[in-house]
Amino acid sequence: MASLKVPEIAPSPIQDSERIRKAFHGLGTDEKELILVLGHRNSKQLKEIRETYQQLYNESLIDRLQSELSGDFRNAIILWTQDPAERDAKLANAGLKDKRKGIKHLQILVEIACASNPNHLVAVRKAYCSLFHCSLEEDIVASVSQPLRKLLLGLVSSYRYDKVTVNLEVAKWESTKLYEAINTKKLDDDHIIWILSTRNIFQLRETFASYKHLYGNTLDQGIKNCGKGDMESLLNVVVWCIDSPERHFAKVVRDSIIGLGTDEDSLNRGIVTRAEIDLLKVRFEYANIYKSSLDDDVIGDTSGEYKDFLITLLGIGPKGL
Amino acid sequence: MASLKVPEIAPSPIQDSERIRKAFHGLGTDEKELILVLGHRNSKQLKEIRETYQQLYNESLIDRLQSELSGDFRNAIILWTQDPAERDAKLANAGLKDKRKGIKHLQILVEIACASNPNHLVAVRKAYCSLFHCSLEEDIVASVSQPLRKLLLGLVSSYRYDKVTVNLEVAKWESTKLYEAINTKKLDDDHIIWILSTRNIFQLRETFASYKHLYGNTLDQGIKNCGKGDMESLLNVVVWCIDSPERHFAKVVRDSIIGLGTDEDSLNRGIVTRAEIDLLKVRFEYANIYKSSLDDDVIGDTSGEYKDFLITLLGIGPKGL
Repeated sequence: MASLKVPEIAPSPIQDSERIRKAFHGLGTDEKELILVLGHRNSKQLKEIRETYQQLYNESLIDRLQSELSGDFRNAIILWTQDPAERDAKLANAGLKDKRKGIKHLQILVEIACASNPNHLVAVRKAYCSLFHCSLEEDIVASVSQPLRKLLLGLVSSYRYDKVTVNLEVAKWESTKLYEAINTKKLDDDHIIWILSTRNIFQLRETFASYKHLYGNTLDQGIKNCGKGDMESLLNVVVWCIDSPERHFAKVVRDSIIGLGTDEDSLNRGIVTRAEIDLLKVRFEYANIYKSSLDDDVIGDTSGEYKDFLITLLGIGPKGL
Repeated sequence: MASLKVPEIAPSPIQDSERIRKAFHGLGTDEKELILVLGHRNSKQLKEIRETYQQLYNESLIDRLQSELSGDFRNAIILWTQDPAERDAKLANAGLKDKRKGIKHLQILVEIACASNPNHLVAVRKAYCSLFHCSLEEDIVASVSQPLRKLLLGLVSSYRYDKVTVNLEVAKWESTKLYEAINTKKLDDDHIIWILSTRNIFQLRETFASYKHLYGNTLDQGIKNCGKGDMESLLNVVVWCIDSPERHFAKVVRDSIIGLGTDEDSLNRGIVTRAEIDLLKVRFEYANIYKSSLDDDVIGDTSGEYKDFLITLLGIGPKGL
């Protein structure tokens, strides 16, 4: 359930490109107009606009946004306007190169691998090769140490069956495997990696439910009881992204807002990358878990065009046309 | 370098479909006509013919071939006419289910993973999900035991960078890693799997060359010296498929021919799956290694329409139109 609001009859890519071009000209850039157009188009329409804009004006729309705008608004609107597979490939690369943020920098890889559909994941791997001249997996091997390396390699290499097919016996059996691994604190056991990286999402949700049914507590609680290391943290992101991506992204948005200052990179990721997927559900989970309004919290923590753009993606900004 | 010969100006898919339909009718099937049409079209043209035939006559061309024909000719022409990704998915599935042939049944998976381009491999994984309602990787985990399981999972999950980019230092370093694994007889070491399943083909060829330069013998010889187990056999198929797929497929064809009787499944695989890729090179390698003509050996070992079809794919049959 996307929060994005697209006009019933959208203008043609040529009309949109002309409006965008006009917004760049004149005294200063007309950011409001950019938001009205780009913030109300889905990824298919944005692709057509990028291509049409390039043909009409012989320049890259993304490059022009880069030079015309600045700050958090620029980052957010570029993240939104570019090709989703390229965007995620760049986020993955930045995650692998930027180790300042601790384990959080690898979380992005799990989100792409576990909270996307298999075709998007392949498109990201393909875009990664084009942009960085090596495979995503090569960079994981080079940048991440064991046992996280093994886990991430398995996850990003997956191509899961994407229909609802669940085998209850398999779920039961594999939940006992997970329990054994937790009980012996061998979270990097090959079987665990195979289960998490080859099974379809619906099967895994059943396995997690079976775990709770058999052992009384949730799988993420079981993992937490193993310790507070990086493997435990990342495995819990895996479990959340598979079991309830909306709950995971509600947490991403929450964590980016609470405390001193805002983590705009994470806020952008939470809003921008999910606006066309499940942001309505994220909002619902957010209210449910934090007893607070996601919309109000975003509005309270941001300002200017940046705020206007995010609330547009949240579906509560000015109506687009 | 494909051996397949396609007319410079091919008939339209409608004309081809009508010819095929006519060949099915009349007294008995006109196999020669089927060969003249289907044996002279590439996979893109065959796709159009399948679709057009379905629209015109409201039946599947593959199903009709299945009911009209029989024996080795039927198997070969169906293998050729169907979608290549579906074909390989079915071969992979048959390989995983049929254990009578020993290690040879897993060789097909290595061929698909290491002697195809990355987009084809993904298409095969996608087709596998559609046809068998689970991921290829799930079936590998269920059907193959360790350490082959780990090797095959890594290989079929790869999405390699496909441009020529070689780092000589990396090649040298990774050839020492391979040497260590061979020296300590730890062929299932995680590093080995990562090297073979994440690096691009050109980088790996350089690594194999570096191995030979540093240690005097070839990597496949080194692996052979470790023992005669399944892991050694399969690893050598990996090395051959990466280093010189044409040499590997020359061996596939040779092994299918020599000895008593013919292994038609392997012969089909060697000819049919490579006719549009590198069968000219396979023929050259065959002559080079076995001092014998691949064409003559195929002709000597087959008969009837089956022979006619294979030599058509080899580019030495009657001219198509």
